Amino acid sequence: MANYKTKLHKIKAFVFDVDGVLTDGMVQVSENGDLLRTYNSKDGLAIREAVESGYPIAIITGGSSETIKVRFTILGVKESDIYLRSRVKTPDFEHFCKKYNLQPDEVLFMGDDLPDIAPMRVCGLPCCPADAVPDVKAVAEYISIRNGGDGCVRDIIEQVMKVQGKWDTSAPPASSF
Amino acid sequence: MANYKTKLHKIKAFVFDVDGVLTDGMVQVSENGDLLRTYNSKDGLAIREAVESGYPIAIITGGSSETIKVRFTILGVKESDIYLRSRVKTPDFEHFCKKYNLQPDEVLFMGDDLPDIAPMRVCGLPCCPADAVPDVKAVAEYISIRNGGDGCVRDIIEQVMKVQGKWDTSAPPASSF
Amino acid sequence: MANYKTKLHKIKAFVFDVDGVLTDGMVQVSENGDLLRTYNSKDGLAIREAVESGYPIAIITGGSSETIKVRFTILGVKESDIYLRSRVKTPDFEHFCKKYNLQPDEVLFMGDDLPDIAPMRVCGLPCCPADAVPDVKAVAEYISIRNGGDGCVRDIIEQVMKVQGKWDTSAPPASSF
Amino acid sequence: MANYKTKLHKIKAFVFDVDGVLTDGMVQVSENGDLLRTYNSKDGLAIREAVESGYPIAIITGGSSETIKVRFTILGVKESDIYLRSRVKTPDFEHFCKKYNLQPDEVLFMGDDLPDIAPMRVCGLPCCPADAVPDVKAVAEYISIRNGGDGCVRDIIEQVMKVQGKWDTSAPPASSF
Repeated sequence: MANYKTKLHKIKAFVFDVDGVLTDGMVQVSENGDLLRTYNSKDGLAIREAVESGYPIAIITGGSSETIKVRFTILGVKESDIYLRSRVKTPDFEHFCKKYNLQPDEVLFMGDDLPDIAPMRVCGLPCCPADAVPDVKAVAEYISIRNGGDGCVRDIIEQVMKVQGKWDTSAPPASSF
Repeated sequence: MANYKTKLHKIKAFVFDVDGVLTDGMVQVSENGDLLRTYNSKDGLAIREAVESGYPIAIITGGSSETIKVRFTILGVKESDIYLRSRVKTPDFEHFCKKYNLQPDEVLFMGDDLPDIAPMRVCGLPCCPADAVPDVKAVAEYISIRNGGDGCVRDIIEQVMKVQGKWDTSAPPASSF
Repeated sequence: MANYKTKLHKIKAFVFDVDGVLTDGMVQVSENGDLLRTYNSKDGLAIREAVESGYPIAIITGGSSETIKVRFTILGVKESDIYLRSRVKTPDFEHFCKKYNLQPDEVLFMGDDLPDIAPMRVCGLPCCPADAVPDVKAVAEYISIRNGGDGCVRDIIEQVMKVQGKWDTSAPPASSF
Repeated sequence: MANYKTKLHKIKAFVFDVDGVLTDGMVQVSENGDLLRTYNSKDGLAIREAVESGYPIAIITGGSSETIKVRFTILGVKESDIYLRSRVKTPDFEHFCKKYNLQPDEVLFMGDDLPDIAPMRVCGLPCCPADAVPDVKAVAEYISIRNGGDGCVRDIIEQVMKVQGKWDTSAPPASSF
């Protein structure tokens, strides 16, 4: 991971998996059979700060619950950039890149499990939480010191925005969500 | 646990308890009095991968909530292989074996508390999470390094499928659930 | 805590606080404003085993949610032995003792916070989880190695029933709940 | 943090952020898209004890869920002192001070993330949980040994009330909530 820091400068957009990245991987089954997830407010603040600074952000998940859209549209992510039921993630990753006229190597991807490996191989900076599965860690160029749901997303967004001079602690977004 | 690995080769099916194995043992009581459980997405991916590779999987639990069926049928487990309200688990274990024409010693069973001891004594490879009660650990031939709800199911499914050449990381199932 | 073990022999009944003892102290506020709690299945099995062996069990809590009753009546605790909205706990403790013709020194009480101190001073064996507040630890004769919600109730019930020859692992209750 | 203890004597009121202070920062998205939070009962007892002793308490949060009000009004906090959707927190902090005729340096503020820094700079004793972000820790005069949602609020309320002779363990409020 010696030189992942040099790649932080060229990142123009972020893509995140949900389960195990933006959550700790746990899903609660509700009485009606919906799958409920629990998110981290420090991650949320970073996503909102990135959105307000103009970074496109995509969510690409195998999950299908509409509540995933609720959480991220509140933070400013565009609903059309939230890919649910993604069984093979690379095409969705490429769709997102084209939409914003981004080269894949300008896009950071953070995932934690096997379906994330393929897009991680083609993105600009493959990242994962500390508790990703070994096969994912093997392809990651940056392994966060944070686990999924415990701030790994905040960690990497903050690093990118800081090296690019965009992380302004004096005018933070509301932590509202 | 020296030779549990030799037994991985002959395993043709899996049986799992729910509370304390597929969860961390915690249940939330909802406003309507239903008992809500929280599951691990990395376990989920392994169950789906095992189902897609043709391994029969049974869930045998003392729990009675219909939401248990929701979680596992989404992953591909057959509803008729989900045994709720199982007060004495061995008959249910044997029923499952007969249904699929399996010898008990071809079936792996993972449990964590007293009701699991009896079926663990007759199955092919008795396993438990790291935080199983001492009496269960005493009869387990493999104690996962993972706790219940923290990936013990993923751990053992992955081990079995890897020694049998069935764990294909290049074509994973969607993590969807 | 040298001689708390000698007191285990005379215990005929159990009283438990809820928040911080039978849970980790966390309460989720639902959309309707109800307070939802999350319980431990290993504690649950021990409570059911104690009930089936004939030990009276009381729940004395400052909490007011009806869902508390749901959880413990499922396990076999009598609804009339579940004291909600208990602002001063000693009278409720004494009411329970009289109902079952128990001397206070035959009853174990496990609590974790200030309202539990008074009944702990008059019970037969004051106990607390490892993460009780310091003032409660100061009056406890047994401090479990387990935290609230992490099996402290299972720990103490199992110890009592084992010294009294009532803990039968060969015929466990269903873990059902 | 050598002399934060001298400041405990002059504190007459408390202000708390919610996410990451009164919770561990995690929010669950419900089926209806509401954001559900989980609170600590030991923090709750301290808030009730402070309210009953006459300390004004404000909640200032970027969050917007009405369930936040439910949780704290149950504990005795006045609904008009619960500031939701606070995007810039200092004006709300000052509004609270004026309402109770308090000097800012008589008011303790505990926060954990960037939006809390500004009011922490003007309050009498800026505090944060152990797991606050580094920029917040840099302005805090007291960093609790407890994480958000794990008793950091109990920790600081108890310290203030003890040095002021107001923490009465013999007549605790009910832990009810």
